[in-house]
Amino acid sequence: MSDSDLAELEERVRASEFQGWAGLELMGMTRGTATFDFTALPHHRNLVGGLHGGVLAILADTATGVAMHSAIYPERTHVTVQLDLHFVSKPASDRIVATGTAVRAGRRIGYAEAEISDEAGTLVARASATFAISERRREGD
Amino acid sequence: MSDSDLAELEERVRASEFQGWAGLELMGMTRGTATFDFTALPHHRNLVGGLHGGVLAILADTATGVAMHSAIYPERTHVTVQLDLHFVSKPASDRIVATGTAVRAGRRIGYAEAEISDEAGTLVARASATFAISERRREGD
Amino acid sequence: MSDSDLAELEERVRASEFQGWAGLELMGMTRGTATFDFTALPHHRNLVGGLHGGVLAILADTATGVAMHSAIYPERTHVTVQLDLHFVSKPASDRIVATGTAVRAGRRIGYAEAEISDEAGTLVARASATFAISERRREGD
Amino acid sequence: MSDSDLAELEERVRASEFQGWAGLELMGMTRGTATFDFTALPHHRNLVGGLHGGVLAILADTATGVAMHSAIYPERTHVTVQLDLHFVSKPASDRIVATGTAVRAGRRIGYAEAEISDEAGTLVARASATFAISERRREGD
Repeated sequence: MSDSDLAELEERVRASEFQGWAGLELMGMTRGTATFDFTALPHHRNLVGGLHGGVLAILADTATGVAMHSAIYPERTHVTVQLDLHFVSKPASDRIVATGTAVRAGRRIGYAEAEISDEAGTLVARASATFAISERRREGD
Repeated sequence: MSDSDLAELEERVRASEFQGWAGLELMGMTRGTATFDFTALPHHRNLVGGLHGGVLAILADTATGVAMHSAIYPERTHVTVQLDLHFVSKPASDRIVATGTAVRAGRRIGYAEAEISDEAGTLVARASATFAISERRREGD
Repeated sequence: MSDSDLAELEERVRASEFQGWAGLELMGMTRGTATFDFTALPHHRNLVGGLHGGVLAILADTATGVAMHSAIYPERTHVTVQLDLHFVSKPASDRIVATGTAVRAGRRIGYAEAEISDEAGTLVARASATFAISERRREGD
Repeated sequence: MSDSDLAELEERVRASEFQGWAGLELMGMTRGTATFDFTALPHHRNLVGGLHGGVLAILADTATGVAMHSAIYPERTHVTVQLDLHFVSKPASDRIVATGTAVRAGRRIGYAEAEISDEAGTLVARASATFAISERRREGD
C-alpha cells in the first residue's frame, strides 16, 4: 500500500457515518495497525452503570477490521467471519484506546488482534478476529 | 423470579438509554430468554455497505446478557467476561432479530448463547458468552 | 456426497491413527453431522482429577472437523482456522458423546458446532469452529 | 508462591500421566508463565497429514492452565470455563513450543493467553482462556 492509498483509506475511515455514530476517532494507521480513541457517554452504559460490552465489541471489531484493511488494501478486501472478546478489567476512565494489529494476512484467511486500554494504560479487553480475504473487485470493494 | 420481577426487569431494559441509542427493541423476555428486534440504518453500515460487525456484537452482547439477567435476577447479578461471535451469512433484510438463551446459570459462572436471524429466518450470526455471577448487593446492581 | 463416498470417508476416519490414539470411536456420520464416543481413562485426567480440557478440545475439533468434511467431501477440502469451547459442566460419567454439525459450508468459509454430553445427556461442553474451504486437489487431501 | 511451592508444582506437572500421554514436556515455569515442548508423532496427524488441531488445543489448554495455576497456587485453584484458539500457520517443524501467560488472575475470574510456535519461531497458533478461580480447599485440589 502506497502512502497515498494509506491516506485515502484514513480519509474514508474518518468520514464513515458508522464511526461518527459510534463515537470512534481514528488516531493513527500504519500498514497493518489502526488505533482508535473513544469517550464513553451516558448512553454507552449498561443497566448497572458499566461500559456496555457491545461498545467494547464495536471498538474491537473496528480496530481489528481497519488494521486488516490497511494490511491488504487496495489489492484485496475482507469480511469478518469471527470475533472473540475477553473483558479483562473495568476501565477506570471514560476515555478508551483500542489498537488493532493484523497478525497474519494470507491469501484467503486473515487473523488480527486488538488491545483495548483505559487512559492509565490498564488492559480493559483483548480481542481476536478471523477474516475471509479475497481479491478486490474494482467496482465493488 | 416472580412475574412482577420479570415485568420490572423488562421495564428497566426498555427504558435503557443504551438500548435507545443502539436501536434495540425488547420483543419478549421469559426467565432465561430475551428477544430483541433491530432495524439497520445507514449509520450501522461498514465501509463496504454491509451491516457492521460491531452492531451484531451489540445485539449478541445484549441478548445474551439480558437472557442471563432474567435467569438470575433479582437474587444475583452478572458481569460478561467473554463473548464470541460467528458471522454466518449476510442479512437479506434491514430488520434483524436476536434471541438470547441462558444455557447454564451456576453460582459463580454462567453461559449463554444467542442466535441472530434476518426477517426470512436465515441465520446471520451465532454468539456465546461467559459470565461471572455473584450475589446481588441491594444498593449496588 | 454419494453413499459410497460417505462409507469411504467413515472407513478412513475409523482407520485414523489419531482417533485410535485419542480413544475416539466414530458412532455415526451423515452428510453434515458426525458423532463420536469417548471413554475417559486415567491418563485423560488433569492435576485435580477432572477430565482434561484438552481432551474435550480433541473431541470438539474432531466432531466439528469430520462433520464439515462430510458436508463438503469429495469436491472440497477444509482447514480449521478457529475453534472455541465453553466448558459447561463436569461430566458425571467416563463415557462422553460428541456430535458435530456443519451449520454452513460456503465456497470459501465454513462454520460448524459441536455438543458434548455425558451418558445422562447432561451438556458438558459446546464448541464452534471456523473453516477455510477450498477446491480439493486430486493428489492432495 | 514460594520457590518451594513452584518446585513442587513443577514436579507435579512433570509427573502428570496426562502430560506423558500427550507428549508434553514442561520446559520452564515462573509465577504466571509456563512453557511446554512437544514433538509431533504420526498419531498426532489428521486425515490430511497436518498436525491435528486437537493436539494444538491440548498444548493451548495446558499452557494456559498451568500458567494460571502457577499464578494462584497454593492459595487458590481454578477451572477452565472457556478456551479459544486461532490456527495461524502450519508448523514447519515437528517440534512445537507453547508458552502460556496468566494475564489477569482475579479473585473469581482469570484470563490467560498462549502462543504456540514452531522451531523457527513462526507463530502457529494463539489461544485465550477464561478461568473460574476459587479458594483452595486443603483436602481437594
